[in-house]
Amino acid sequence: ARPRVGYFYSGKKPGQDISETMNNMKVGDFQSIPVVVREDVSVYDAISQMFLDDVGTLFVVDKKSFLTGVLSRKDLLRTSLGNQDLSTIPVHIIMTRMPNVTFCFKNEPLIQAAHRLINQQIDALPVVIEQPEGLKVIGRLTKTNITRAFLSLSESHEL
Amino acid sequence: ARPRVGYFYSGKKPGQDISETMNNMKVGDFQSIPVVVREDVSVYDAISQMFLDDVGTLFVVDKKSFLTGVLSRKDLLRTSLGNQDLSTIPVHIIMTRMPNVTFCFKNEPLIQAAHRLINQQIDALPVVIEQPEGLKVIGRLTKTNITRAFLSLSESHEL
Repeated sequence: ARPRVGYFYSGKKPGQDISETMNNMKVGDFQSIPVVVREDVSVYDAISQMFLDDVGTLFVVDKKSFLTGVLSRKDLLRTSLGNQDLSTIPVHIIMTRMPNVTFCFKNEPLIQAAHRLINQQIDALPVVIEQPEGLKVIGRLTKTNITRAFLSLSESHEL
Repeated sequence: ARPRVGYFYSGKKPGQDISETMNNMKVGDFQSIPVVVREDVSVYDAISQMFLDDVGTLFVVDKKSFLTGVLSRKDLLRTSLGNQDLSTIPVHIIMTRMPNVTFCFKNEPLIQAAHRLINQQIDALPVVIEQPEGLKVIGRLTKTNITRAFLSLSESHEL
């Protein structure tokens, strides 16, 4: 559609259009630092790592640091109900495994990634770079990041 | 400040101002149904309840249904690391207890509640009604709700 440019009676203060502002927000502007663990660490150690780094999702990588899976608090909590010794179960047994991992890219619009978080009912997306051998994890995008983005919309447009 | 009303050259399509749109979003428009447990249920049963209702936070109430605490996945996961029998620990031992519970109201602007989620580093707020004897829980506001609100901003303003 051709943009409508000109004088309009808005009855409101002049402000940037919401869609345009939102389309300019990219994943890379809001992403956090990823926390990764190796496939062979125990569920016990993964939970400890989660508390140490205060994150809700861990990304699992192989020896070459390529993404192989994702671990959420929900996955770890489910396992802890099982009355098993958490220090003997490796995370690759319980993780969500590639190719079932939903991810995103740094240059993607934030809206698109937010849709994926809602539609897939997940807490965090790994931000990745595609390489011939697999995916390298360079970031973490969570609903906390989206909440910050939501707040930034109101902050940058306050009277 | 007096509102500036009149003709402005915006160079953009006419659109509602972001701040105004956001200030009109209330907690009640986006909240979810709360899931509550009693103070004397075991940690094991609370985790099971969490999976049954597919929520990340449980609200804890006393016999008169007044709010006494909050349980997050993080609280429950921490306890599960302790190598104790989860079916013998009541949730009131591990919950975040009143008056340290952060809450919100149905008619509050969503932005204000979102600020509280970020500043307090929590996943969910109980939406409450104040009564002389305590707080009644009528809703649950999470970062998922804020993410939905974020998406609704772009959806209602698409070309």
